[in-house]
Amino acid sequence: MAKTHHFVPERYHLTLGSHEPVLVIAPGDTVLTSTVDASGCDSTGEKVVGHGNAQTGPFYIQGAEPGDILSVKFERIWPNRTYGYSGCGLSSNVVEPAYVREIPGEGDRSIWNIDLKEGTATLQRPKVKIDPFVIALNPMMGSFGVAPAGGQAISARTGGNYGGNMDYRGVVPGTTIYFPVFVKGALFHVGDGHAAQGDGEILGRGIEVSVDVTFSVDLIKNGGALWPRGENEKEIFTIGNVRPLHQALQHATTEMLRWLQKDFQMDAPTAHMLLGQYVRYQIGNVFNPAYTVVCKLEKKYLP
Amino acid sequence: MAKTHHFVPERYHLTLGSHEPVLVIAPGDTVLTSTVDASGCDSTGEKVVGHGNAQTGPFYIQGAEPGDILSVKFERIWPNRTYGYSGCGLSSNVVEPAYVREIPGEGDRSIWNIDLKEGTATLQRPKVKIDPFVIALNPMMGSFGVAPAGGQAISARTGGNYGGNMDYRGVVPGTTIYFPVFVKGALFHVGDGHAAQGDGEILGRGIEVSVDVTFSVDLIKNGGALWPRGENEKEIFTIGNVRPLHQALQHATTEMLRWLQKDFQMDAPTAHMLLGQYVRYQIGNVFNPAYTVVCKLEKKYLP
Amino acid sequence: MAKTHHFVPERYHLTLGSHEPVLVIAPGDTVLTSTVDASGCDSTGEKVVGHGNAQTGPFYIQGAEPGDILSVKFERIWPNRTYGYSGCGLSSNVVEPAYVREIPGEGDRSIWNIDLKEGTATLQRPKVKIDPFVIALNPMMGSFGVAPAGGQAISARTGGNYGGNMDYRGVVPGTTIYFPVFVKGALFHVGDGHAAQGDGEILGRGIEVSVDVTFSVDLIKNGGALWPRGENEKEIFTIGNVRPLHQALQHATTEMLRWLQKDFQMDAPTAHMLLGQYVRYQIGNVFNPAYTVVCKLEKKYLP
Amino acid sequence: MAKTHHFVPERYHLTLGSHEPVLVIAPGDTVLTSTVDASGCDSTGEKVVGHGNAQTGPFYIQGAEPGDILSVKFERIWPNRTYGYSGCGLSSNVVEPAYVREIPGEGDRSIWNIDLKEGTATLQRPKVKIDPFVIALNPMMGSFGVAPAGGQAISARTGGNYGGNMDYRGVVPGTTIYFPVFVKGALFHVGDGHAAQGDGEILGRGIEVSVDVTFSVDLIKNGGALWPRGENEKEIFTIGNVRPLHQALQHATTEMLRWLQKDFQMDAPTAHMLLGQYVRYQIGNVFNPAYTVVCKLEKKYLP
Repeated sequence: MAKTHHFVPERYHLTLGSHEPVLVIAPGDTVLTSTVDASGCDSTGEKVVGHGNAQTGPFYIQGAEPGDILSVKFERIWPNRTYGYSGCGLSSNVVEPAYVREIPGEGDRSIWNIDLKEGTATLQRPKVKIDPFVIALNPMMGSFGVAPAGGQAISARTGGNYGGNMDYRGVVPGTTIYFPVFVKGALFHVGDGHAAQGDGEILGRGIEVSVDVTFSVDLIKNGGALWPRGENEKEIFTIGNVRPLHQALQHATTEMLRWLQKDFQMDAPTAHMLLGQYVRYQIGNVFNPAYTVVCKLEKKYLP
Repeated sequence: MAKTHHFVPERYHLTLGSHEPVLVIAPGDTVLTSTVDASGCDSTGEKVVGHGNAQTGPFYIQGAEPGDILSVKFERIWPNRTYGYSGCGLSSNVVEPAYVREIPGEGDRSIWNIDLKEGTATLQRPKVKIDPFVIALNPMMGSFGVAPAGGQAISARTGGNYGGNMDYRGVVPGTTIYFPVFVKGALFHVGDGHAAQGDGEILGRGIEVSVDVTFSVDLIKNGGALWPRGENEKEIFTIGNVRPLHQALQHATTEMLRWLQKDFQMDAPTAHMLLGQYVRYQIGNVFNPAYTVVCKLEKKYLP
Repeated sequence: MAKTHHFVPERYHLTLGSHEPVLVIAPGDTVLTSTVDASGCDSTGEKVVGHGNAQTGPFYIQGAEPGDILSVKFERIWPNRTYGYSGCGLSSNVVEPAYVREIPGEGDRSIWNIDLKEGTATLQRPKVKIDPFVIALNPMMGSFGVAPAGGQAISARTGGNYGGNMDYRGVVPGTTIYFPVFVKGALFHVGDGHAAQGDGEILGRGIEVSVDVTFSVDLIKNGGALWPRGENEKEIFTIGNVRPLHQALQHATTEMLRWLQKDFQMDAPTAHMLLGQYVRYQIGNVFNPAYTVVCKLEKKYLP
Repeated sequence: MAKTHHFVPERYHLTLGSHEPVLVIAPGDTVLTSTVDASGCDSTGEKVVGHGNAQTGPFYIQGAEPGDILSVKFERIWPNRTYGYSGCGLSSNVVEPAYVREIPGEGDRSIWNIDLKEGTATLQRPKVKIDPFVIALNPMMGSFGVAPAGGQAISARTGGNYGGNMDYRGVVPGTTIYFPVFVKGALFHVGDGHAAQGDGEILGRGIEVSVDVTFSVDLIKNGGALWPRGENEKEIFTIGNVRPLHQALQHATTEMLRWLQKDFQMDAPTAHMLLGQYVRYQIGNVFNPAYTVVCKLEKKYLP
């Protein structure tokens, strides 16, 4: 019987790694929990852990073995407090090098009031020429994944084939992410909620908030994924996390080819032709140590 | 009085450069003309010029001076023959290096029948497991632009701040592109129509066709653009064309910041905050010598 | 009193991290120890640990605190067995993408006999047209460094600001490397000896051997390094480890500017002018997940 | 009979292209001529052409056909005036993005007195803490090459498979460069002398001077080069010119493999093994629109 777990975190990790599990769950189970914001502040605004996308978890999934795929479906993501923060100026690495000198307040924080009833965020400071500056909430998870291979513990600020900090706007309720499993139990971590964000997280931050998050997990034995995959109602997608940006695109594209050929009954010519005509790319982040490119294909084109 | 010119090309250029103009037109004028396909074949399938995105033009725009902006609005783009060709396997530089050996038929051509009435393209060969493989036409222009600076003549296979081979799916009827003017008369060139294409032109080709194209031109004096800009009904956008992919994103992003601050009455903090929350990126091509990234902002967010 | 420690390793780590120290040493001390080869085989050829540049250590340096610099001088590096292995074909990511299909035996091993008396390595297999293929030994350490920041444990196959897998031919006896210290005790790890290697480790491997290594350590309090630095009799140098290659060069260059200004009594104009006229770059590796660029300056040019 | 031509330039080109030849020469001939500095100033300091590595030539080589190789041996390169200029601060794209704000006087010129008798350059301004700042002359050519393919004319500020702006310190008297020939007559251009320069031309300029240059030319029919190659007394080398830096390395490495296999009687396994153990890389420039990587192999290792 699938269970629903209410998990209240008491400590957090600044790395994704083979840490002591906080909870053992089974395939099919659902977890309701919460995450702190990117700087380690919780729903009350108290700093409970250091800066750097602190992770709730890890959750041990019974039966998960290296070579399997862990699926995580996000059921709900919603801010659990009424303010968030973001950046003020674009990151120095997303503008032309000589233009860096023109960036206003790189590293400074902007502060946003969050209206949970209206589903909006309103800029409090700095004052800009659009006033009020109100945006619609689009709560998403930025950094999450499984324990990396080989006993590694890697900062939740970066990412790789195990997930990590991807900052993909598409990770909203209703989205499922599939991870390669590298260690027994998979060890799922989750953190870094954003109330909203543009492509690329080019301010160096989304609108950073602590959130309540609900997710359910499942296992695909011997799944064969080498990089994170995902799906929502309309699309399947794959994710590459690495620098440079072009290599992230190469990983995402190649993973999609592998997926189409293994699980969608296509031979190579069919997979290449289909992807060539219908592929859509989206940029997750171009700020973190590992950039993120998402390779997408609408489900309606799948045979 | 704005004029409409019917121009039948008799020769083509494989470079964008300061070539002898084929027609002198005035701001406000409209031109109906045609382009050959990427391999130099015309509406009858006859090869009339060499391979490499041969360009129709250049068109001399009266009054255009270096420092101005030339606007080109595409009114109509439609195939003028009933077949097109594309690739069979993804380009070797869009997959992981070690995966290159798995590419089926890189460099081979796929052949598509085009039904101009239905607005579809149907794969003729090779045979793949999706049969029939029918896609909706989305005719667009791949390579076009103005004469580059400094007396240069640059292959229509690549691109830069003057435009060139961008392969952006968004260049469809209703779209306006704004170019920095580098030479007297601007010298607009146009070629490389695609019946349809995925993001990135990852097969190394769209569905390559000869097309009939109608465009109108206008001038903005002392416009201040450093890279191509554009707009459609819903969005404004900027375009960076260069390798690596990340630098293309830097140029597009920086050009958008310049545009917002110069022409939309924003100061730097406002432009950065707005772009940071609402930017959307799209990849034009990741195949050509110069990759293309498009930085987009929905008009509804502009003050 | 500086001590000399003879340390015989009994276990190895596949990551650089905050592992339990194997030995506590003091600034000024010297350690004689050994490392296994990149695949985990020791001086007898026995596989004693998994593949991936297994590290001897970590060594805890008394008094080392975050913000200090740990200096490690390599006194001796010498193979402790009579065979090594390397690659047969260049790595797929150092040739043009379409040329990948021409690589002979990528991933295969070549086997070399090592004559410790003559100081040579002779190719045993595969047979190539140069026969005998004899090269002079130039023993060096490929992967070594301190524990990374933030509780991370990172594969010894890659590198970063804490060192790691740099595969720089210049790390030979007589060379000192300076590391930023991120954790109490610094936790120095060392592994991955090469009998010889070209620039870039473009075969994906040097001539991989187990080695005997002797090093001495020292501390510079509050040193201010952000990336590894080094020196030999003739040069000072800095090291950047990251993809893409150009960013590795940016880190190495910037670190040299910081060093010149902090420790060599230069103002910014002097440091820039000196480096601009005299800089030499060398490529450590272009194979690992993080590429390595070394920025060098001859000591004779220092004031 | 080989002839010696004394050619006094009267006009210059800011692009490498299929321009009207200024002189027709035969294989075996020698040319004594001069070049202006990067900003277009001649031996008297007079500005005779615009900024941008203006080229002397082109020289038409009798018998050169596409597919041949043009060899150009530099016999003499020597400043023909007593001052040069360089930069003051490193280029914004060779430092970490956030460090750009620390660059002193990016874009400013430093002025150097050149003592042609002593063979030295002495910094005149700005004043720095090394005083006098005297460096040894190492005169070299920065930008030169043949007409590119396909009727292109490309700015002498950038480079490609036809040569162009490579800023490789190794192009000194005694060095021979081999170019693929793309057009009848090859059309050799030469310009951009430097009195001296560090690796990478990281100040954005070498010590820019007008020079007297003597070179002799020869032809290799059907040579098979795809990128520039070269040799000096001790080494053979190949050159890649493109962004990003890693791709320049890929072209140079692949061209060396092609050369070794075609002209040095090696099969693929031998060429890979030899290059893998002995390759040396050097960075030409990391400032121009196309970066330059040189792949080198000492002649003593060739069979």
